[in-house]
Amino acid sequence: MEKTILGVDIGGTSIKIGQFQLDGTLLQKWDIPTNRKNDGAHILEDIVDFVKQQFSLDSIKGIGFGVPGPVSNDVVSHCVNLGWGRVDVRSRVQELLGRIDIDIKASNDANLAAAGEVFQGAAKGYQNVCMFTLGTGVGGGIIVHGQLVNGKDGSGGELGHILIDRVHQFSCNCGKKGCLDTIASATGIVNLAKVRLQSTTQPSLLRTFENFSAKRVFDVAKGGDELAIEVVKEASAYLAQAMAYVTMTLNPDIFLFGGGVSNAGEYLIEHIKQIYFPLVQPFVFEVPIGLAKLGNDAGIYGAAYMVK
Amino acid sequence: MEKTILGVDIGGTSIKIGQFQLDGTLLQKWDIPTNRKNDGAHILEDIVDFVKQQFSLDSIKGIGFGVPGPVSNDVVSHCVNLGWGRVDVRSRVQELLGRIDIDIKASNDANLAAAGEVFQGAAKGYQNVCMFTLGTGVGGGIIVHGQLVNGKDGSGGELGHILIDRVHQFSCNCGKKGCLDTIASATGIVNLAKVRLQSTTQPSLLRTFENFSAKRVFDVAKGGDELAIEVVKEASAYLAQAMAYVTMTLNPDIFLFGGGVSNAGEYLIEHIKQIYFPLVQPFVFEVPIGLAKLGNDAGIYGAAYMVK
Repeated sequence: MEKTILGVDIGGTSIKIGQFQLDGTLLQKWDIPTNRKNDGAHILEDIVDFVKQQFSLDSIKGIGFGVPGPVSNDVVSHCVNLGWGRVDVRSRVQELLGRIDIDIKASNDANLAAAGEVFQGAAKGYQNVCMFTLGTGVGGGIIVHGQLVNGKDGSGGELGHILIDRVHQFSCNCGKKGCLDTIASATGIVNLAKVRLQSTTQPSLLRTFENFSAKRVFDVAKGGDELAIEVVKEASAYLAQAMAYVTMTLNPDIFLFGGGVSNAGEYLIEHIKQIYFPLVQPFVFEVPIGLAKLGNDAGIYGAAYMVK
Repeated sequence: MEKTILGVDIGGTSIKIGQFQLDGTLLQKWDIPTNRKNDGAHILEDIVDFVKQQFSLDSIKGIGFGVPGPVSNDVVSHCVNLGWGRVDVRSRVQELLGRIDIDIKASNDANLAAAGEVFQGAAKGYQNVCMFTLGTGVGGGIIVHGQLVNGKDGSGGELGHILIDRVHQFSCNCGKKGCLDTIASATGIVNLAKVRLQSTTQPSLLRTFENFSAKRVFDVAKGGDELAIEVVKEASAYLAQAMAYVTMTLNPDIFLFGGGVSNAGEYLIEHIKQIYFPLVQPFVFEVPIGLAKLGNDAGIYGAAYMVK
């Protein structure tokens, strides 16, 4: 019987586990709660217990883990969301499994989203990929020569912390000001809209809401609201600049956008394209810029990709 | 007898050829003139003729070529300095050699300088490297997972064309304004100094020269000339910003500086470090930032590295 691989995406509230064939076909998936007690000391135990109950260990080729923090050489340096300090995932899991013949790998979850899209999603067949995940924050994932780039300190693909905005200088949770995260995440897009609403008298449907989301900004922009359109253009310009920096470094084969903000879809992509291409000519004339496909499952696909 | 490898660095006036052991030991090197007649049609012929005269083809494992233009999949898309349009280096050289069992690879020469430093220079033993070559222009080279990053259109590592200066907006020969090339190359540093000399009345030794070089700017800065020190700080700040962009993308193991401007040595590196590290904390606290070692031979080492 062909062995299977497991992809585990550890989040702050739940852990997603997927069983895959080596070719990336998803066979089954499960959700188990994240036990954050004792600084998350039981998380890996819970996962290994689940695996032992569910599978014969002889049937498993490898297990990949995604973690919401910096990871280098399968070692997590710290992970606030899980309560973890330094955790050597490979050693700990092999110890809990009681065997070393099962391949164990770990990586940052935003990086893994890119790997997932390479495995079975919108970047399938591409060797060099740059993906932005636009959610509550901005995450990133970089694949070069078909392999994830974690970086020396696990900061590879930390595209949300490219210092890009010299105008608003909103504070970022990393301690700096002006990160891409502060103006292109869902929170960031709301920030940009609020500044425009406060600093101008331009009429806008957004003025009729006491609070609004990034989705609302996109919705009224699509409806023709001029102020909201300016906000979309501004966020798109920052994203296009970040893409241009990545381009002059890696000249990737494809750019992808995932995460909640990317639900704005082709409307967002079109704005980004209009600004990006003039920035990178004559070095790049054409490169696919598209939407991620795997949604919340990207992490388990990417985790499995590492051990395929 | 162990086979050897050849590294060929094709420049606009001369072609450097090095013979190496597989472990990177340089055995011999030669210089032959670049024949640019007929749009450089004879360049590869001349190289193959030289190789056939000098060596038994059976003794050669592979030949790597460095070219001063964009290269993707061993195909040069255009190269103004050599008069070339599209040239499929691998196919043409294999045709001229009359055999397909010798590995032929081609890459951009600035990229190869980084590979050379990995092979036998200041980045030996590192898998992920970012190198800036500060000469008449600013070149760049990126190594990830031990392999060169050429990029989809051969624009990987085109670090000189990161759009970074929003103040002076000097024109770049790529057609855009504000590229790193325009403010951190030898020409760029002179540009920065001239602007300061013209726009202020600040006293400076540089005012005693009708014309001066980047080397002169560094020399008087080292001597304590305040205006020249400000110029060095300004160029260093742009370089540090570009390094920060690369960091949030790749988080490389080491940064290197080569080319003529890097002769300013540790003085330049110290200025860069002071600005770089605050930009990348808390994602990176320590990373080696050093000077390249191989000088003009970096290209032949890097070309050989591709076929080792």
